[in-house]
Amino acid sequence: MNISRSFSIKGVGKYFPKKKVLNSDIEEKLNLPEGYILKNIGVQSRRQVTTESNTFMGQQALRSALNDANLNLEEIDCLIGASATFDYVLPNRSCLIKESFPEAKKIDFPCIDINTVCTSFITALDYASLLLTDPKYQNIAIVSSEISSHGLNSKEPESYALFGDGAAAIIISKGKSTGGLLHYTAKTYSEAAQYTIIQGGGNANHPKHFPYDEGLYSFKMMGHKLLKAAKRTLPFFIEDFFKESDIPLRDVNLIVPHQASKLGLRMLASLNQGNTDNIVDELSTSGNCIAASIPLALVSSIKNGRLNEGDSCFLIGTAAGMTISGLLFKYSKK
Amino acid sequence: MNISRSFSIKGVGKYFPKKKVLNSDIEEKLNLPEGYILKNIGVQSRRQVTTESNTFMGQQALRSALNDANLNLEEIDCLIGASATFDYVLPNRSCLIKESFPEAKKIDFPCIDINTVCTSFITALDYASLLLTDPKYQNIAIVSSEISSHGLNSKEPESYALFGDGAAAIIISKGKSTGGLLHYTAKTYSEAAQYTIIQGGGNANHPKHFPYDEGLYSFKMMGHKLLKAAKRTLPFFIEDFFKESDIPLRDVNLIVPHQASKLGLRMLASLNQGNTDNIVDELSTSGNCIAASIPLALVSSIKNGRLNEGDSCFLIGTAAGMTISGLLFKYSKK
Repeated sequence: MNISRSFSIKGVGKYFPKKKVLNSDIEEKLNLPEGYILKNIGVQSRRQVTTESNTFMGQQALRSALNDANLNLEEIDCLIGASATFDYVLPNRSCLIKESFPEAKKIDFPCIDINTVCTSFITALDYASLLLTDPKYQNIAIVSSEISSHGLNSKEPESYALFGDGAAAIIISKGKSTGGLLHYTAKTYSEAAQYTIIQGGGNANHPKHFPYDEGLYSFKMMGHKLLKAAKRTLPFFIEDFFKESDIPLRDVNLIVPHQASKLGLRMLASLNQGNTDNIVDELSTSGNCIAASIPLALVSSIKNGRLNEGDSCFLIGTAAGMTISGLLFKYSKK
Repeated sequence: MNISRSFSIKGVGKYFPKKKVLNSDIEEKLNLPEGYILKNIGVQSRRQVTTESNTFMGQQALRSALNDANLNLEEIDCLIGASATFDYVLPNRSCLIKESFPEAKKIDFPCIDINTVCTSFITALDYASLLLTDPKYQNIAIVSSEISSHGLNSKEPESYALFGDGAAAIIISKGKSTGGLLHYTAKTYSEAAQYTIIQGGGNANHPKHFPYDEGLYSFKMMGHKLLKAAKRTLPFFIEDFFKESDIPLRDVNLIVPHQASKLGLRMLASLNQGNTDNIVDELSTSGNCIAASIPLALVSSIKNGRLNEGDSCFLIGTAAGMTISGLLFKYSKK
């Protein structure tokens, strides 16, 4: 395995809101038959915020990652916020996460947001691996913290029951070991740009001129068109990705996909020769947590020993836009 | 001059909305004495959108930059959207700008948003220069497109009359010449994190629970506290920056600052030994265009011959968060 940019993952952390929402709660609220959600959407339960903010969840996840890495906040050289949702239009997410640490006032590392919607974490990991080629960076924190629950439409059960809230953080560091980036690619397919959208809240339909309306201000997904677009593009994306990589997909130790949907995960399994053993699937317990899904699944895999020192790991996901991002790396904590 | 990452600026473009808003319009609306705005805020006129969107303005600026570079859209390898405001909560800004080109459907380069609020363009330029170290990138487009006008509070003339709308785009390419990055630094000072904020519209005060209210949904600036924080940090930031750079500030050919405010530009001039000759000041005709201000001023400087082949150029700005970003580069179009 040929490492193009070396890094180690020194620490990982995650945070889920306290409130667990069961299918029975949603099925009763939306007048759906019992068992409908698990059967059709594949989610059993998801967490939703009550008082938690994007900033608070991000801070909790990062604090946990710092503890895991045995690092203080002042040893971080850059914080990348890699999320689609936010507490405030401005300042940027990462600045608020940093500020929420009591010790932050005396520490001046830069805070940068990066956003490719659901694959923001992959983009951030590639970016961080580039920053680490510069001598001024030793440790970089990446935090994905997402609240989907305010932007869901109760008239669209396919998305209302699919999404969850949560946050994950990882700290990547200049590696002394053999871990690091093996291959990264991202592509944006514009024919599918409008298949997933939140129309209200920005300048196109500003709250000043467009009062709140559940349909306008909620996540909208043209599920069938999106799935067709993914079927048209994902197999070629993965084929091309592994043509350019020096190990084939079948030799990858662990696949950590975006927990996009039941059908999305099924499509990935079929591209993996029907093998699901090495694909991390947490959809049933967490739902789709937007950009936090991939790092949440990565953090679990490291914590529960599914991803081990020296293993290869393939992060892959589709995102609104429509962007597909893939990143293959060799895991090392050292 | 020691180039750490080489690049050329192959093309530049900009777009301003058609509607020009004069001080007399605002002074009448807000019941301010004639001449108040120019005297206190330093702006004579600014552009504001009527039907234009962030996406449309970004597309116009990028089309113009492509023409300037004599490149087609398909020759771009990555589009970085570097803005604070947006048309939609999702998908990300850059995906929508790409999609707005009729020829985009057959082109699959990735679209990534980066956000450090007003200094997003500086962060994006550093990022793009890192991406160009990877053989798969030849030409990278950076687009900053901002609509401030929907988020201004008519009860706060200091910001209401300060901001403008506009977009700028540049294309940076693997350089054959001696142009490129000389030095880059960014720092986030968390004590000032909440001095500039838009409180409504995100998850903290979601439109679902907080109906539109001009105060809540508009830009809020604690001007005096912010200025004090800038006075405490900016002189040291610039001093440290040039200690680490191999040319001193006095030898820089052109300084392109964020058009933050009259007082901000005055502070910079005093740090430049009182010299304003080599500082680009477009505040009076454009206002503060958030992240578009720096690239707009850079584009003008290239177009009107103030920045010439081989010149050194220092981009510097403060941003909500509070982040200060500085980037010194040697300009080359080749």
